[in-house]
Parts: sequence; C-alpha cells; structure tokens
Amino acid sequence: MRLLIINPNISESVTQLIEAEARLSAGPQTALTMRTAPFGVAYIETRFEALIGAYAVAQVAAEHVAGHDAVIVAAFGDPGLAALREALPVPVLGMTESALATACLLGHRFSIIAISQRIQAWYREEVQRHQLQGRLASIRALDEQLANIGAVQQDHEAALLSLCEQAIRDDGAEVIVIAGAPLAGLARKLKDRIGVPVVDGVSSAVQHAQSLVNLQPRKATQGSYARPPRKPHQGLPDSLAALLG
Amino acid sequence: MRLLIINPNISESVTQLIEAEARLSAGPQTALTMRTAPFGVAYIETRFEALIGAYAVAQVAAEHVAGHDAVIVAAFGDPGLAALREALPVPVLGMTESALATACLLGHRFSIIAISQRIQAWYREEVQRHQLQGRLASIRALDEQLANIGAVQQDHEAALLSLCEQAIRDDGAEVIVIAGAPLAGLARKLKDRIGVPVVDGVSSAVQHAQSLVNLQPRKATQGSYARPPRKPHQGLPDSLAALLG
Amino acid sequence: MRLLIINPNISESVTQLIEAEARLSAGPQTALTMRTAPFGVAYIETRFEALIGAYAVAQVAAEHVAGHDAVIVAAFGDPGLAALREALPVPVLGMTESALATACLLGHRFSIIAISQRIQAWYREEVQRHQLQGRLASIRALDEQLANIGAVQQDHEAALLSLCEQAIRDDGAEVIVIAGAPLAGLARKLKDRIGVPVVDGVSSAVQHAQSLVNLQPRKATQGSYARPPRKPHQGLPDSLAALLG
Amino acid sequence: MRLLIINPNISESVTQLIEAEARLSAGPQTALTMRTAPFGVAYIETRFEALIGAYAVAQVAAEHVAGHDAVIVAAFGDPGLAALREALPVPVLGMTESALATACLLGHRFSIIAISQRIQAWYREEVQRHQLQGRLASIRALDEQLANIGAVQQDHEAALLSLCEQAIRDDGAEVIVIAGAPLAGLARKLKDRIGVPVVDGVSSAVQHAQSLVNLQPRKATQGSYARPPRKPHQGLPDSLAALLG
Amino acid sequence: MRLLIINPNISESVTQLIEAEARLSAGPQTALTMRTAPFGVAYIETRFEALIGAYAVAQVAAEHVAGHDAVIVAAFGDPGLAALREALPVPVLGMTESALATACLLGHRFSIIAISQRIQAWYREEVQRHQLQGRLASIRALDEQLANIGAVQQDHEAALLSLCEQAIRDDGAEVIVIAGAPLAGLARKLKDRIGVPVVDGVSSAVQHAQSLVNLQPRKATQGSYARPPRKPHQGLPDSLAALLG
Amino acid sequence: MRLLIINPNISESVTQLIEAEARLSAGPQTALTMRTAPFGVAYIETRFEALIGAYAVAQVAAEHVAGHDAVIVAAFGDPGLAALREALPVPVLGMTESALATACLLGHRFSIIAISQRIQAWYREEVQRHQLQGRLASIRALDEQLANIGAVQQDHEAALLSLCEQAIRDDGAEVIVIAGAPLAGLARKLKDRIGVPVVDGVSSAVQHAQSLVNLQPRKATQGSYARPPRKPHQGLPDSLAALLG
Repeated sequence: MRLLIINPNISESVTQLIEAEARLSAGPQTALTMRTAPFGVAYIETRFEALIGAYAVAQVAAEHVAGHDAVIVAAFGDPGLAALREALPVPVLGMTESALATACLLGHRFSIIAISQRIQAWYREEVQRHQLQGRLASIRALDEQLANIGAVQQDHEAALLSLCEQAIRDDGAEVIVIAGAPLAGLARKLKDRIGVPVVDGVSSAVQHAQSLVNLQPRKATQGSYARPPRKPHQGLPDSLAALLG
Repeated sequence: MRLLIINPNISESVTQLIEAEARLSAGPQTALTMRTAPFGVAYIETRFEALIGAYAVAQVAAEHVAGHDAVIVAAFGDPGLAALREALPVPVLGMTESALATACLLGHRFSIIAISQRIQAWYREEVQRHQLQGRLASIRALDEQLANIGAVQQDHEAALLSLCEQAIRDDGAEVIVIAGAPLAGLARKLKDRIGVPVVDGVSSAVQHAQSLVNLQPRKATQGSYARPPRKPHQGLPDSLAALLG
Repeated sequence: MRLLIINPNISESVTQLIEAEARLSAGPQTALTMRTAPFGVAYIETRFEALIGAYAVAQVAAEHVAGHDAVIVAAFGDPGLAALREALPVPVLGMTESALATACLLGHRFSIIAISQRIQAWYREEVQRHQLQGRLASIRALDEQLANIGAVQQDHEAALLSLCEQAIRDDGAEVIVIAGAPLAGLARKLKDRIGVPVVDGVSSAVQHAQSLVNLQPRKATQGSYARPPRKPHQGLPDSLAALLG
Repeated sequence: MRLLIINPNISESVTQLIEAEARLSAGPQTALTMRTAPFGVAYIETRFEALIGAYAVAQVAAEHVAGHDAVIVAAFGDPGLAALREALPVPVLGMTESALATACLLGHRFSIIAISQRIQAWYREEVQRHQLQGRLASIRALDEQLANIGAVQQDHEAALLSLCEQAIRDDGAEVIVIAGAPLAGLARKLKDRIGVPVVDGVSSAVQHAQSLVNLQPRKATQGSYARPPRKPHQGLPDSLAALLG
Repeated sequence: MRLLIINPNISESVTQLIEAEARLSAGPQTALTMRTAPFGVAYIETRFEALIGAYAVAQVAAEHVAGHDAVIVAAFGDPGLAALREALPVPVLGMTESALATACLLGHRFSIIAISQRIQAWYREEVQRHQLQGRLASIRALDEQLANIGAVQQDHEAALLSLCEQAIRDDGAEVIVIAGAPLAGLARKLKDRIGVPVVDGVSSAVQHAQSLVNLQPRKATQGSYARPPRKPHQGLPDSLAALLG
Repeated sequence: MRLLIINPNISESVTQLIEAEARLSAGPQTALTMRTAPFGVAYIETRFEALIGAYAVAQVAAEHVAGHDAVIVAAFGDPGLAALREALPVPVLGMTESALATACLLGHRFSIIAISQRIQAWYREEVQRHQLQGRLASIRALDEQLANIGAVQQDHEAALLSLCEQAIRDDGAEVIVIAGAPLAGLARKLKDRIGVPVVDGVSSAVQHAQSLVNLQPRKATQGSYARPPRKPHQGLPDSLAALLG
C-alpha cells in the first residue's frame, strides 16, 4: 500500500524526522511518499499558523493523493484533517488523532508532552474537539527557546524526560503522548526510561493508516463526510478546484 | 468606529444580505466596510469549504484590517475566527459565536435553524467547540435543494417558520438562532410570529463588535491569543507575511 | 435608552462604584437609574446571602422597571437573574453572565479573580449553571479580611494583580474576569499591567444591555421564559403581586 | 427525631398530600412538624415562583428550626435548598435532590414525570445543577390545564401512567421519578403497574433525613457550607437576621 | 429487616471493621449477616482484583441472599454492584455509591481520601461511572506501605487527617469521603477534627439499605435492571446457575 | 505474530463467526489462537452476564497468554478488558473499544447497531466509560426474539440494514458500528449498501492488535496499569494465582 505523508510545516529537517520514524514503523509492503508544505511557517504552534498549514496541506493532498491508499497529515494538531476527510477519496489520518487513539487503547488517562508553552492551548482544544477531555490527565510543555527545530529532541531530552515523569507521578498519566512532529521518534528512544507506555504520533498514524487500508471502509456518500456537494466556486488552485468537482 | 465585515463566500448576493442587516443594526457612529472573499465557494456548508473560506478570510482581513476597530467573519460556522483573534490587532467576531453569545443572554437552551441537512454536523461541532452543547436544544434544517442562495429566506419562509415552531414545542428551545448568512435579516422579519426571542448572527456580531470596541480590551501579549511568535516562513501572500512579522 | 441597575447589596459605597463604572461605559444616549437593595447584607458571598439578595432585587425591579428598557442585576453571582428574565417585560442582565459572555468573545479559557475564599464555591456553581466549566481555567481569590468593602480594590491591588498573573502563567487563562461589584472599575485600571484582556462585570452588563435593547428581542410568550402563568397567590408585596398579574 | 417539613407553596391541600405520604414513610420514632409558606403562589413551576418560594421557606425554616433534627424543603425543584444548607445548624433535604439520590441507588438512568410542560425547563436545570444530566433519560410532563392542584393525581392518573410507560419503553428509563409535591404519594399507588422502580420525592426526603440524622454529620465550619460569615445587614425579618448572627 | 453484608476481600480483620461500623449505624430492628469472600485477595486496589472480587461477591450473594431484605457490597469501588442489581430480587448497595449519595446530600463538591496511590485511578473511574466527576474536588491518598491492612487507620491516622485538611483548604472539598473498607469507622473518630462533614461508606450503605427497604421499590421487570433473560448456560456454580433461572 | 482471541460466551457458533472474520482481517504473518469460555452463558447482554464472562475470560487468558503477542476479548462490551490490561504482560484489546477507536478515525459521530433492546443500556454505559458520549449519535437495536444466536445476521439482515439507515438519516451517524460478536462479519457484507463507513468489532480489534504489537509499547511498571502489587490471596484457580505472582 502507498501512504502520502504531508508535513504542513516548511521545515525539511522536520520532514526527515517524520520520514525516519515512519519508515521504522511501516510494514514491508507499505510505500511512503513524503511531501513538505511549499508555503507556511517553520513549525506550527498557534491556531493562525494551523490555518495556513491546513490550506497548504489541502493543496498538497489534492495534487498528490492520486495513487495513494491513505493520507497522513503529519503535524500534531492535525491542521485540515476533518476537512480532508470529507474531500479525499481515501482515509485521512492525523498525528494527534492517531496518537490519542493509540493512547486510549493502552490506558484510561493520558498526558501530552509538548515542545512549547504556547502550543498547549491549541492541543487542549484539539483534545476537546475529540471530546476526550475526560481522559486528559495533563499537558506539560518545555518552557525554553527552541534554537533548532530539527534538533529539539536532542537539545532538550532531559527536560522532556522530566516532564514525562511529572505527568506520571503528579497527574496520574497512564500513557504518555509525545506531541509534535519535531519530537517524532523520541518515544522510541525514551520508552525504556519511562514507566508507562509512550506514544508517538507518526508511528501511530502509520499503523492506523495501515489498519484502515486493510479494513477498506467505504467512502461516505451520505452524512457530513460525503464529498462536499457541487456548487459554484472561483479562484481556487486547480488541484482544489478538481476536488470540488 | 469602523467595522470590517468579510463574507467568506464568493456570493455578492449574500454580502448584500449581510450588509443590509448590518446597517439596520449598527449605531449611527459605526461605519461598515464590506468585503467578499475573492476565492472560494458559493456558500459554505462543509468543513472542507470552511477550510478554504478560512484562508480567504485571513487574506482579506490581513489586507484590509488597517484603519478598522474590529473585524467580523460573516459566515455562520466562523471560518478562521480563533486564528484571526491571535493574529489581528483588533477584536474579531464571528456570526456563530456572536449569535450564541446573544442567545445565552436571552435564555438557557437554544435551537439552531439551518439551511441544509449537510450543514448541521459542522454547526454541531462548532457548538461543541464553544463547549455549549449543554445548552443546545436542537439543530433543525431545511431538507430541500436551494435554487438561489440569495433568496433562500423568501423561497423557504414557511418551512423555516415551521422548523422554529417545532424547536420550541418539541425540543424546548427558549431562544431560536437563525443560522447562516443567507438567512441574514430573517429573524427581524419573523420575530413577531415566533413565541421566543429570535437571534440573527449578523446583527449579533455587529452589536458585540460595538461592545468590544467600547470596552477597549487590550490585545493579548501573553497566552495563546498573543500574536504568533516570529519564526521563519515562506511562500505566503504579502498580507499574511506582514501579519506574521 | 434607560437602564435600571440594581445593587442587591445594601452597601451604598458599592452602588457608587458600580455607577462610576457604568457611566464610563454607557453610551451618550443611555440613561442610568441606580437602586440599592433596601434590605439584605453588606456584600454577598454565599448562597444564603444570594437568596436574600434575589428577593430584594425582585422587589426593587418590580417597583422600578416601568419606563426602563433593560434591567441589570449588579452583583457577581447574579442573584435572581433567571427568575427576573421570566417575569420582567424587558431584557435582564447580570454581572457574571455578562462578564462570561464578554470573556468568551475574547478567548477560549478564562479565570475569575474574586475577593474572598468563601465566594469561590458560589462562583464555580454559577459557571456550571451556565455550562461553561469547560472554559474555566481557574478561580483565584484573595485570602484576607476585607476591612472596607468599598475600598477592596485599593487596599488589595497588589494581591489582585498577582492573582491575575498566576492565572495567566499557571492556569492558562486567556482572559481575566475581575469578579464582584466591589471590584467594579478595577479592570480599567489594571488592564495595561496584565498580559491578556481583562473583563469587568459592570461595563460588560451595560454593553450587553445596550446590545439587547438595540436588537429588540421579543419577550417570550412560549417556553420557560414566558411570564409565569396566572395562578392564586397571597401575601406578596404589591410590586411582586403586580408582576404575577 | 423531629423533622420540620416546609411546603414552599401556599396550598394547604398540597401540604396535606405531603404530610400523608411523609407519615406513611417516616419511622415510628420520627415526629413531623408541617408548615405551609405564609406567602407565595399556589404551586411553583417557574424560576420566578421558586425565587419567591425560596425566600418564604427561608423565613419559615429560620422561625421553626429550633428543636428539629432536620429540615425538608417539600417542593420539587428544591427552592432555597443549598442556601439553607449553609445557614441552618441541621441537615436540610429537598424533594428533587432526595428523589434523584434514591433513583441513583436503584438504576443508572432515570426519567422525571412532571405535572406541566412549563415546569420541565426548571427541573432540567436542577438536574444539571446536580451534575446528573448524564443519567437523565428524559423528562415527560402532562400537557393539560390543572383544575385543582390538590387533585392532580386523581384527575390525571391515566395520563401520568402513560408517561411512565413511554419513558421506560422509548427513553430507556431504569427508574421513574414522580415529580412535584402535588403528586406526593402517587408512586406508592402506581408502583405495581410500572415495570421499574418508582421514586417519590417526599418519602425519599423523609428517608434521607432519617439517615442523615442517624449519621450525625457535623455542621461545616470550613468551606462554603459553613454559616455565612458575620457582616452588617439591615431590613431583614427577625428570624433571618438571627440566622445571620 | 435483615441485611447481608459481603466483604469482597478475604481479610477477616476487614470484615470485623465493617461489622463494627455497621452495627453502630444500623437501627435496632436491623439484623446483619456478615460474609467474607472465600477466595480473592487481601484487599482490592486494582481493576483486576475487583474483577475477582466481583465474581466472589456474586457467588456469596447468590448463596446467601435468601431471607435478606437487601445486600451490601462492602468494598469501596463496589465490585459487582450493578451486575447484582440486575440479578438479585432485593436492593443492592455499594460502599462507594452509598458514600457518594450521602456526600451529595451534604454539599456540592467532595474529596475522596484513599489508602494507596494505586487505588486512585480505579476510584476516579468509579466516580466517572456514576457521572459525578463534576462534583469531585479531588482524590488524595496515602503514599506509604501498608504493613497491616486491618490497622491502617491507627497506623496512619495523622497522615489521613492531613490529607483531609489539604482537600478542604486546597481543593475546595465541602464534604470528605473516607474511602476503603479498611478505613471503616474512621470517619466517626475524626469527625470533630475536620471542618466539613465526613462520610463513611459502611454506615452510608447501611442507612441507604434501610431507606430502600422502607421505601419498598419494586424489582424491575422491564429495562436493564430486570433479571437477565433466560438462556442456555453451563459450568456455573449452582448458586449462580440458580440466579440465572 | 500470535493473537489469542477469547470468546467470553460459551457459544462455539459465535466463536466460529469471530474466527472467520478475524482470519479475513489478519495479516499473513498473524497467527490466531481461538478459545471459547468454558463456563458462562450463550451470549452476553447484561451486566451480570458480563461479570461472569469477565471472570471466564480472565481464567482463559491467564492459562493461554504465554506465547502470544496480544489478547483480544471478543465480546462487545469488553468484559474484563481493563482488568486484564493491568494483569497481562501483553496488549489487550476489546471489541467495543477497538470498534470505537476505528469509528473515531472515520468520522465524528457514530451510531451503534445492536442485537437486542436489553443490551443497549450496557453498551451506553461502555461508551460513557470511554468518555465518548459526546460522539455517540445513537444506539439502535433489534426488537425481536433471537432464535439462533449463530444466525442472527442472516435471520435479521433486513431489519439490521434498516436500523443503519435510520441512524444515518435521523440521528446524524457519520459511522456505523455493528455491535456484538454474533454480528461479526456483517459489516463486510453490508458495507456497499450503507452510505457511511461501517465498523466491525472483530476486524477492528485484530487490526489494532497488530498495530500495538508493531508499536511495541512497554508494559507499564508505574501507574494503574502496572501489574497489581503482590499481596496475600487464596482460593484462586492456579492460572489467576500465577498472574498475581
């Protein structure tokens, strides 16, 4: 099967982190196509940046979806996820949604470990959007300047580990979700040093994408995830216009 | 004061409905600038169309916000609202959020009357996003083809009135919210024929915009509604790039 | 337009604080009638005191509503608000409800800053009554004796400012609500020293009252905010008896 | 033990219904003092009427509590309950709260059967105030004029039974709560004709009052159910003034 | 009346604590039958141990219910409670459910004081199962090895008292629930040293059992608490087989 | 990898349905061990039957887990799931939890289609236990006698299809979950006749089991999903005793 993985950020270094983790997780029959947003910001941590990332992801997805069995929006916060689930003919996965789905299969309450103070509000709203606030033990985040977004996990490993430990001991976390594409792969590295299961968004999304492709759910033709009804439109890039029919 | 009102749809006929209702509601000192999205769809009823509308609104707002005291996103569902609240230096209002705020000042439980079956799921999610599901009595919607989006309220007046009555009698609605920019102004027309207060999104947004301008809240410099932190970006329209600093 | 503003406490000094802030906020065409509860306690911080305040407010409102376009219950906690919304022919606003409505237009999660430890439970229940617990970041309160209820904001300014800062930094507050009529006007004074928007209950209520008067919602004739149905009654003050018809 | 049972309505016929059911339920050692509100309305079905009833109950309770071991507010909707729990030195029970407590010991989801359409909104808000909306299967109510409030249960027995059956079959009710003092005792009469346990507010309140008297919980001296702190007051009836110290 | 009280743990010392408190609480006409689980663990603090305890309780209840008017599952966490409520012909009470019911009659928000860190997750889920998370102020627990499960309350009295005080002061607890059969009776001892009402699970269950026996609710014949429908079964102990009919 | 799939019912015919669907879904490298509960009932639709099923599953799992990479509890309602997640050294999946996880990756709101009226209450409580009530559109169920539990899907296909259509059209279901092991495999057959994705519990559990085995989450050593702490026990089957250490 073929998965299209789109980084909604413009940072190639982050795309490489995503790809490395995705390849470690994907099955032998799974081929990956990696794409980086052609426009946007270096990394997304606000609602406004997510608005831009969502539009970029939509364009990339529309251009490249042909020939793929599923699409992964590879930023925590899942910019554009629900919208693309309507418009694309194949399953669409996001890093947050996938990580939460995995976490919920491993325990009742989870904590999210994030890369910046600012990003917490957006993540909390995403958890609420999924109606999972009753299972959120806490969100804890780094409180430092990020000099190099591609090297956050090396530069701040000790601090991140400490946040995980606090979440378990003080907040009752039964599962840890390591959030943010810049931390892709860190779960794999830390897992033997943390006393509860640790979930990574990229590998979760790859696994769930494989599952959905195997399950072959039909594309909705009724309800709110059917393709948007045809109607007049104007001024859109050709790829988006094509999706709208 | 000067309000910038942006229609995220491309339909000039809808912009005219919005403008007519806004002018009836605005105070004598309030000047209105109307703008229609230069790209997008004829009317928004899905998450995917809202993703496009959000990006269009962001561009229009970025270009035209200068010289205005507040911005109104004039589509029910509020595409881009929270994102713009971060990025713009002035208060930003949306039709759904404003209508719900008004409804909550008039009663405990409200029903939303909408123009299409499809649009209900998106509206329900918006109510959940505001955490107001505990006050939602019901959403009821037309179940007919809309031949002319600028004339929905005339073409379907009897059906819309009937939906209002059902919501009051069967669902316990204490307030009716007439949803969707194509229905702008209908509340004013129907209000004497409906036994509970009827709320219109456009006039609510205008009133709340005036209130916020009068209250002069400061622009956040801390927390998640401060401007997004500066970081590298690329490929953005000049207006959006300028907002990102 | 004419607004009737009723202080459910017996403290004239608090009525003066309310009036000062209301006059600063009200538009040039808005006339204010101030009334202080003729019976009750010096300030309301418990459910029992609110029961008394509610009855006092009801009597004052019944006596004086004639000739006014809206009524404001000017104590945080809104004693009697929902009840009066049924019985009075004009819109009725409360300080808590109005402040929360404003806060929700400025950010997703708010904190409430209060004048006493004791008062927190009642405020929390009010937030729950509005079904807004999902947006409450925290309630923080002074923990000191209040020597002079009319001078709380001067006597404890530094402590109040510090509570605001903690709410933003530790609780994720995106908006601060300064609660309690004795703190009326403080938001205006502190707003440049606090990194997020600060909301005042009095000015919020005045603004929303003006909005509702402008929107001219009809008085409900159906549903639970219609006037109570006529039925036998006895022993009531003339003003309340008149409201019951 | 001695229980003070206060009817917040002015209807002696309802007090008699309450007394009859209370006597059937109370243990042999339990003495009952019955009191009817000296002012107010014939029966309470709105928030405004409850405001009046709450003040009446507070006065009656303040005057008569001496010598009693617990107080019961004998109207569904529990006017004044939480307030009196602060102010009185003994446990205070209400019909709604007690009925819901009993219902929750008999099943997971309950329905409430009520005497008027209008009353449903107030009851729903009371369920929300107790945070029990997740266990409410439905509220169903008579939709007829009540000619004689003391004879509702005879006049409408068939309709009430039918509402119970609908709640079980269509709404999934596992317990039925018969609501409203005018229906006191009806549960006892209908119970063999209804396929799930049926709960009566009066007998529930009597039983829980006996339990609390037996358990001898201390009166709170900390937290929000301690007596209201002393502070200046004026214009109150002597009984209420005495409670405030 | 006769109550069957079953300890789902195998610890006779805990059964004795339960019995002592039950006898102090029960009325003069109430006879108690005490039973200890014949298999299982020394005390239950995990979901897996509760699964075992539930099966043990079911067997004991099935064997001994005849001749009793109600059954009490005497472990906090209520293993098997809802299941037995379906299968047994008499009311079934649990310690957690009963304690929460009592707590909710005494205040709005309660804290639970528990004997081990591990046990908190299970208790939190039980609170959620009852849909009472909106009234949970906190769960606080001992963080020490329990040398002798029958002597926890003596060995750790000071620490337990300190947890109660923190819950009141820091978490806003209006009622304290002392959780766990090994702490049965402690509430009685501590109550004068704690500023809010303190609730014990055993005496609460005894009181509520007495109330339900007095109220004589019928056994459900419809809905999900009717006896399980007859169907083939195999391999069950005779007592359980008899319950299944 | 090797999966142990345990049917908590005693019906071999149901085990065969489960096995058939599991084999269609499992990858080529996945070996399946099927086990049927040695004691219990023909099919589980009540809390009491689930209590029995949970104990049976625990014994079977304890006996056979060695040599397997994950365990699946193959009854909708997931008897014993959370308990086994504590006690077993490998991931444990359930049919309900897995189906809901899949459904949440395909849409926002799902409906559950079930085989009996009685079973709905238990399923609703399971959805609440997962805190997913905010995403539950409805539960709809057959209302007929089930003559042959192994042939429900053939005998009632038209009625089941009709329930699916009602859930989509009237309840707003965006995903359909076909519930109950007796319906295993039905989703595969119906999917082209239903306008939204249809989820099957067995294949979902197999897919998620494969994902978790691939992700290799560590067994918790901290928090509430660590193995239960060692303590005295007695009277347990050897297999359970061995799990307790």
